[in-house]
Amino acid sequence: MAEVEAIARLVNQLSKLPGVGRKTAQRLAYHIVSLPEEQVRELAVAIFNGKKQIHTCPICGNFTDTDPCAICADDSRRRDILCVVRDPRDVGAMERMRDFNGRYHVLHGVISPMNGVGPDDIRIRELLARLADGEVREVVLATNPDVEGEATASYIARLIKPMGVKVTRIAHGVPVGGELEYTDEVTLLRAFEGRREV
Amino acid sequence: MAEVEAIARLVNQLSKLPGVGRKTAQRLAYHIVSLPEEQVRELAVAIFNGKKQIHTCPICGNFTDTDPCAICADDSRRRDILCVVRDPRDVGAMERMRDFNGRYHVLHGVISPMNGVGPDDIRIRELLARLADGEVREVVLATNPDVEGEATASYIARLIKPMGVKVTRIAHGVPVGGELEYTDEVTLLRAFEGRREV
Repeated sequence: MAEVEAIARLVNQLSKLPGVGRKTAQRLAYHIVSLPEEQVRELAVAIFNGKKQIHTCPICGNFTDTDPCAICADDSRRRDILCVVRDPRDVGAMERMRDFNGRYHVLHGVISPMNGVGPDDIRIRELLARLADGEVREVVLATNPDVEGEATASYIARLIKPMGVKVTRIAHGVPVGGELEYTDEVTLLRAFEGRREV
Repeated sequence: MAEVEAIARLVNQLSKLPGVGRKTAQRLAYHIVSLPEEQVRELAVAIFNGKKQIHTCPICGNFTDTDPCAICADDSRRRDILCVVRDPRDVGAMERMRDFNGRYHVLHGVISPMNGVGPDDIRIRELLARLADGEVREVVLATNPDVEGEATASYIARLIKPMGVKVTRIAHGVPVGGELEYTDEVTLLRAFEGRREV
């Protein structure tokens, strides 16, 4: 009996989180048990509500607790430029840059034959539908600058260029092989400014 | 607006955990939001129940969901040897070693003048009370082999040796300056076997 049942269960749950190994989970579990009950309640509620209140915006696919999301509902944002990203967290990264005033399209993945993800498994069809009315003049492809992100960007560019839309790709200011999510605001800004037509 | 409200709240709560910075909290939050609701419910419940069901054992001070704890209630364990540790998680570490069949006393801290923790702030008084009936013949001081752990062990040794109890200290098989919690079972076993009288 190394741990009491309730702690073992907690360790087990925590170690399912990404980047949290057994030792880290143990450390977190003992920390949580040591906290005042009110703080633990806040944490548990934030986790549960975080999940319950959040769904994907039917327009852009970003995580939202309103319908449509705050960005899609914001009339002060440009409707003629669309930034295509892989994940909702990439929207967070772009927004922290504070320079982009258009709207987003979240793919929820990238094309990855190795992992069995094809064009139909990500929100490309929804992107094409959004472009149908001709309001969008430019699509900025802001998938990660890694192999799959580049391949996905090329695939989308080939699809939508015939629709008469300007297609740009964020510049390689973002370190090659890196993750958009972990890029600092300045680098992201430079990458965005240096975007070039595909 | 970098993140929706519910995600921002979740990131905020998660970043209060030890060793979880802002970036890690964001990564965890987006992961949690992407999980099936049932899995998130399990995590939130494990956290909340982990806290609610756990209290400290009135005898040894270890975390427990029974009263007294499973170790104190186990009549097959020796009553004549007591292992003194800093934290409940150190009990977990000792138990994983599977070689100690006595009981524990958890101090819930070590003496640390720098942090304003004196002898009265940790469970030393409770330790003395447990030794009063003369049943315990040996006290193994298993605080961490760092400055504060050594000082606490010396302090306790000076207090209880006059009571006619054999006082031992785990050997320095545990790397000096290291943490008991992160020590592998074999090293802990060696440290325990090499314990010497103080």
